[in-house]
Amino acid sequence: MANILLLIALITGVISILAAIYFTVIVMRKDRGNEKMIEVSGYIETGAKSFLKVQYLVLGIFILVLFLVILLFLPSAMTGHEVPVLAGTLNWQQAVAYLVGSLASMFAGWLGLIVGVKTNTRAAQGVTKGIKEGFDIAFFGGSVMGLAVVGVALIGVGGIYWIFAGNNPDAEALQFATQIVLGFSFGASGIALFMKCGGGIYTKTADVGADLVGKAEYDLPEDDVRNPATIADNVGDNVGDIAGMGSDLLDSYVASIVAAMILGTTVLAAAGVRPDFVILPILLSAAGLIASLIGIFLIKYFGGDNPGKSLNMGTYISTAIFAGLAAVIVAIMVSQIPESLTGSEIKVATWKYWKDYIAVVLGLLSGVVIGWTSDYYTREDKKPTREIAHSAEEGHAVVILSGFAYGLQSVVLPAVGIIVAMSVSFILDGVFGVAMAAVGMLAIVGTIVSNDAYGPIVDNSRAIAEQGGLGEDIIRKADALDSAGNTAKAITKGFAIGAANLAVLALLFSFVQEAGIAVIDLLNVKVLIGAFVGVVVPALFSALLILSVQRNAAKMVLEIRRQFEEEPGILEGKVPADFNRTIEIATKGALRELVLPSVISIVIPLIVGIFFGVAALGAFLAGAILSGFVFAIFMSNAGGSWDNAKKWIEDGNLGGKGTDTHHAAITGDTVGDPFKDTAGPSINTLLVVMSLTASIFMGLLSKINSGEGVLSDTLFKLEGIANEWVWLVVVILVGAAALGICIWIVVKFARNSKVMQKLLKKE
Amino acid sequence: MANILLLIALITGVISILAAIYFTVIVMRKDRGNEKMIEVSGYIETGAKSFLKVQYLVLGIFILVLFLVILLFLPSAMTGHEVPVLAGTLNWQQAVAYLVGSLASMFAGWLGLIVGVKTNTRAAQGVTKGIKEGFDIAFFGGSVMGLAVVGVALIGVGGIYWIFAGNNPDAEALQFATQIVLGFSFGASGIALFMKCGGGIYTKTADVGADLVGKAEYDLPEDDVRNPATIADNVGDNVGDIAGMGSDLLDSYVASIVAAMILGTTVLAAAGVRPDFVILPILLSAAGLIASLIGIFLIKYFGGDNPGKSLNMGTYISTAIFAGLAAVIVAIMVSQIPESLTGSEIKVATWKYWKDYIAVVLGLLSGVVIGWTSDYYTREDKKPTREIAHSAEEGHAVVILSGFAYGLQSVVLPAVGIIVAMSVSFILDGVFGVAMAAVGMLAIVGTIVSNDAYGPIVDNSRAIAEQGGLGEDIIRKADALDSAGNTAKAITKGFAIGAANLAVLALLFSFVQEAGIAVIDLLNVKVLIGAFVGVVVPALFSALLILSVQRNAAKMVLEIRRQFEEEPGILEGKVPADFNRTIEIATKGALRELVLPSVISIVIPLIVGIFFGVAALGAFLAGAILSGFVFAIFMSNAGGSWDNAKKWIEDGNLGGKGTDTHHAAITGDTVGDPFKDTAGPSINTLLVVMSLTASIFMGLLSKINSGEGVLSDTLFKLEGIANEWVWLVVVILVGAAALGICIWIVVKFARNSKVMQKLLKKE
Repeated sequence: MANILLLIALITGVISILAAIYFTVIVMRKDRGNEKMIEVSGYIETGAKSFLKVQYLVLGIFILVLFLVILLFLPSAMTGHEVPVLAGTLNWQQAVAYLVGSLASMFAGWLGLIVGVKTNTRAAQGVTKGIKEGFDIAFFGGSVMGLAVVGVALIGVGGIYWIFAGNNPDAEALQFATQIVLGFSFGASGIALFMKCGGGIYTKTADVGADLVGKAEYDLPEDDVRNPATIADNVGDNVGDIAGMGSDLLDSYVASIVAAMILGTTVLAAAGVRPDFVILPILLSAAGLIASLIGIFLIKYFGGDNPGKSLNMGTYISTAIFAGLAAVIVAIMVSQIPESLTGSEIKVATWKYWKDYIAVVLGLLSGVVIGWTSDYYTREDKKPTREIAHSAEEGHAVVILSGFAYGLQSVVLPAVGIIVAMSVSFILDGVFGVAMAAVGMLAIVGTIVSNDAYGPIVDNSRAIAEQGGLGEDIIRKADALDSAGNTAKAITKGFAIGAANLAVLALLFSFVQEAGIAVIDLLNVKVLIGAFVGVVVPALFSALLILSVQRNAAKMVLEIRRQFEEEPGILEGKVPADFNRTIEIATKGALRELVLPSVISIVIPLIVGIFFGVAALGAFLAGAILSGFVFAIFMSNAGGSWDNAKKWIEDGNLGGKGTDTHHAAITGDTVGDPFKDTAGPSINTLLVVMSLTASIFMGLLSKINSGEGVLSDTLFKLEGIANEWVWLVVVILVGAAALGICIWIVVKFARNSKVMQKLLKKE
Repeated sequence: MANILLLIALITGVISILAAIYFTVIVMRKDRGNEKMIEVSGYIETGAKSFLKVQYLVLGIFILVLFLVILLFLPSAMTGHEVPVLAGTLNWQQAVAYLVGSLASMFAGWLGLIVGVKTNTRAAQGVTKGIKEGFDIAFFGGSVMGLAVVGVALIGVGGIYWIFAGNNPDAEALQFATQIVLGFSFGASGIALFMKCGGGIYTKTADVGADLVGKAEYDLPEDDVRNPATIADNVGDNVGDIAGMGSDLLDSYVASIVAAMILGTTVLAAAGVRPDFVILPILLSAAGLIASLIGIFLIKYFGGDNPGKSLNMGTYISTAIFAGLAAVIVAIMVSQIPESLTGSEIKVATWKYWKDYIAVVLGLLSGVVIGWTSDYYTREDKKPTREIAHSAEEGHAVVILSGFAYGLQSVVLPAVGIIVAMSVSFILDGVFGVAMAAVGMLAIVGTIVSNDAYGPIVDNSRAIAEQGGLGEDIIRKADALDSAGNTAKAITKGFAIGAANLAVLALLFSFVQEAGIAVIDLLNVKVLIGAFVGVVVPALFSALLILSVQRNAAKMVLEIRRQFEEEPGILEGKVPADFNRTIEIATKGALRELVLPSVISIVIPLIVGIFFGVAALGAFLAGAILSGFVFAIFMSNAGGSWDNAKKWIEDGNLGGKGTDTHHAAITGDTVGDPFKDTAGPSINTLLVVMSLTASIFMGLLSKINSGEGVLSDTLFKLEGIANEWVWLVVVILVGAAALGICIWIVVKFARNSKVMQKLLKKE
């Protein structure tokens, strides 16, 4: 029966891909609108394709290198836990799974993005026939990404399990299978990091650049085709919110499933029904997919005149259906508990299933709660955003301060949400319960990604409607579609952060279990150091991404100014702007700037693991998860709130457009752009990649000094060393180093203060 | 011999107070300048006094409440570890020590602040006789605070030890003594929290208010006497940087000593020379005081024409003298190792002393390194500040983004510094080594506080010189003194954060040891929750302080506008502005706004301890220390950098004053003000108070479920409970709660989306 369910799950994955293709066909058959619309949409499509081409080319090299590392150097269950290249073997199963995971993620990103950029003009044309027609087209176009993501994930995870453990679910086969799924997950995450950081940098480079010159210096309206960065801006919306968000949620999704599977293999050995618990996450995810599919189809019947309501109702319907389907699955699993067990064993197993079910529902609900708090803190009709808008009346600085403060404050409620979900699900069924909560939260990811991908499509539709000259009425309708997208986006963003957080917590537990770490003791200084580094990394990562956007936007600004100056015809609308140059700047810059953050996310966990050992690496992950959560929520909500405060003012409040208040609000929005669309959401992916890096490299790291790392515990207990000479050497070395630093500092300062003195005298 | 050294330490403390009084007398004999100067200085003095009066009044209630709590409810070694009120006893020793600590801190703050505000006009008049005379007066005036801080700390800690363990240094007496010192330290910290948060809110309320109306709306120059908030602004400088910074460093200083003493009592039991290790921190601190005193006197002989150089040279001289004196003390202690020990025991003890010496020196050096990195990130001639200044050319938003990013980046190097200091000193002598590094870092706190208190004095001098009409030449000289103060401030601020961080790490270790916590295991979900809450608290605390400043500054803005509108004579310089009203707003606002942050810092640790137990409380502290470090460094450095970028532009670079670039830089500076002067530095105090709260209440918390907290470990292992009915109840409760939340959310959303729909239709 379990096998039949698994087969159904696999088939569901295939159906999802087929549904994605079906929606693609439906959307493609729609009318593309007038010539101008086709032209503009063509520019966006070309830009998106060139982004994908360049990204995927570089990703190819990245994937190849990691493929070889996994193949040759990583010990795992498949290599008898020997370093492959030394033992004359190859870790090919995991390496191939890594490759497949990468390709699957690339496929989903490609399909979703391409369909997204082809949908916008069709949705714009659809609006001319009615707001419902436009909504349907845009939503179906967005659903392609959502369904593709869930489809490839389920096929990948389910297929790997089927191949390696389907017919022979003994302990060894299960461990094999989960290790290989880990490879698949790592592949999906690597791509997500590139797509999310790259997409985030791309979209804000274009957006900030377009705003700074076009809007501020030349007073061009939003989406004006004379602005050379307009197309890049539109491409960026798709790249960031379709490809980026999709691959981000794909990696959380797969990570939550794999973490639950790993924890399922061993924690539950006692229950005597092991394989069923390992496939439970897969089955529940399939249930979530079915719920999402039904939700997507039902949305058609919930008044498309109310696009915002439709999207949210879709989410609630999916949630409810999923809760029901999950109960059915659990009931089936319970009915399958072997009768050969003793009465009390059966009782334990039955309870276990139902406790996991509650954990799943709890995860789902806490996802909604977190989404709701994001919504509260970023809604224009709620206190925080209102206050931020009012503080704009006191100038640029005050609007920044209040956005910053409310952003920080907004961390508290989601933290409580995660803490409650984590502790109750732990009380219910230990670490497996936490993993199941993550699975539950991510089960309806198909709906979430669909809603999110809808956003950039209608945003672009509005632009195309404007540039295609469809008239005020149509633009107003397109606006309504767009604003529904923004509402949905606030919820999905909070949801994505919460989900990623629970998923990496589950990954942390699974890492710890696989590494056989009994305790992560903060009183061990090495562990404390690990936690310290972990806490600092999200801050550094955010800093690097923000600086990247800033550097890249500066180049964009120069290019836009150059075009306006060298060819005055552009501003007069006589000569078309050179969109290819701005697209090139955004694309190349995104690529160049994401190298350092990517390297950090893989290298720093390895350094901590190599030097301080696996327990410190666990603490590193915990520190990064907690501080990453704070930074991610803070930056997303502050950014969202600034954005909506500005929009509220633009709607005519507090004096409306063009006032000083409006200018101050624009400053807030511009600061918030890289917060909410680059740095904040990329932290999710950072956390997942770092956690998976730890898991994947765990075999190798546990070989270094038995997992203690290069700086072995003995070093931290030198008192135990009998030979006093060791001590003398240490003391002399430390003393010499200290003296050196001291001299260096004095020299440095003396020089500086001389320089300073000269400067003072000059004046 | 040890007793003689202790007596010397006590005498040093008294000498320090005497020196402070001597300097006070020297400064008071100086000429107060012309009538106008005396008048302005009088306003500032009155303002400062009224701040102290109001603060101390409220502090009185706060102290009384905590005094009673300690007296009646806290079990400690003195009450046989019984809850006093239940056991019919009183915890009077610790309670009295708490009172003494509070009063000592209040005395130091009062003396320092009053002398500071009396020094400014004398220093201004001194400048007319030469830059050296002005520097000497200002520096001596600032030294009063530095010496008072160190003096009261040494007398308090040394005296308590002398009374309770001086003649009878057995294990029990030592533990008694350290517990009472803990009370003293808690008293000093409570005051620090009020002074630091209150001072921080006060100073920025006045500063931001004065800038927003005076400078921006009415184009008045800085320090213009027509601006009603000018005096409040000047008072604020003293309140924030003399009283606030002084009490902040006092509490880190005492905390580092008490942590080392507590760790000394038990860790070193094996060495057979216990009492000597317990007093070692006191003796080293006395050595630091002597070094600071010599440094202060020597500064007279280092060309006062070079004020910046003089201040820094003072720091280096003190550092070097302290390193030498500490070696002498350690050598004496080594010579006192009882000969009754065996050869190998003597060897171990000897090494132990020298290893601790190295830890001390290392702490001292890492303090300087951290100070130096702050300097680098905030200096106008270094890359970060230059880039921030250049980014001002691209507008308000970009200057904020780059300051934010560089601020976050600036966390990395100090983190490495702390990690190196912590791990090497741990390798040297375990947790006691870490505590000794903290003691070493804080040993020269006398010099650091003196340098810091110099800042606001010369800042005010400049203002008084301007308002007293002393002429361009004198103002230029006063400017040179002021700019030296700013340079010194960057270093002392980084130093204060690093020192507080090491001190709270040592406190964490001492808390853990006293509570008998064997491990703080992050894999225990309760511990993980503790760490989670800990990581979030500094973010929340910062948010509250920033919002406080903003709210309060808004009131100040209204008052200033009101005065200008109701009495046009003020702007014409005919009618004096009503300084009392603005001072009242700043004072009352500071008081009102610091209630919530203070409550948080005491209540949240207690909640974590009560519900999740002492191990989770340990993790809470660790989480708060790590995330607090990130936020403190980030906000201080970002703020400093924005400030100096603005100054650099005002010096005529990038177009100079009045340009758009300058306006953008002012935005950065205004955002940075509460970052660097309110939220950032208050985090130090928050961490110390929370750590001490944990230590002081530890006895009570370990009574709750044997230290496991209300949510006992059993709850988190419900599987172990035999009765299935318990389970059924849990499942039903959770299920019902989940359902309730679900319904509530759906209703909430449905209502909201209806509202939204109506709004949409209206348009």
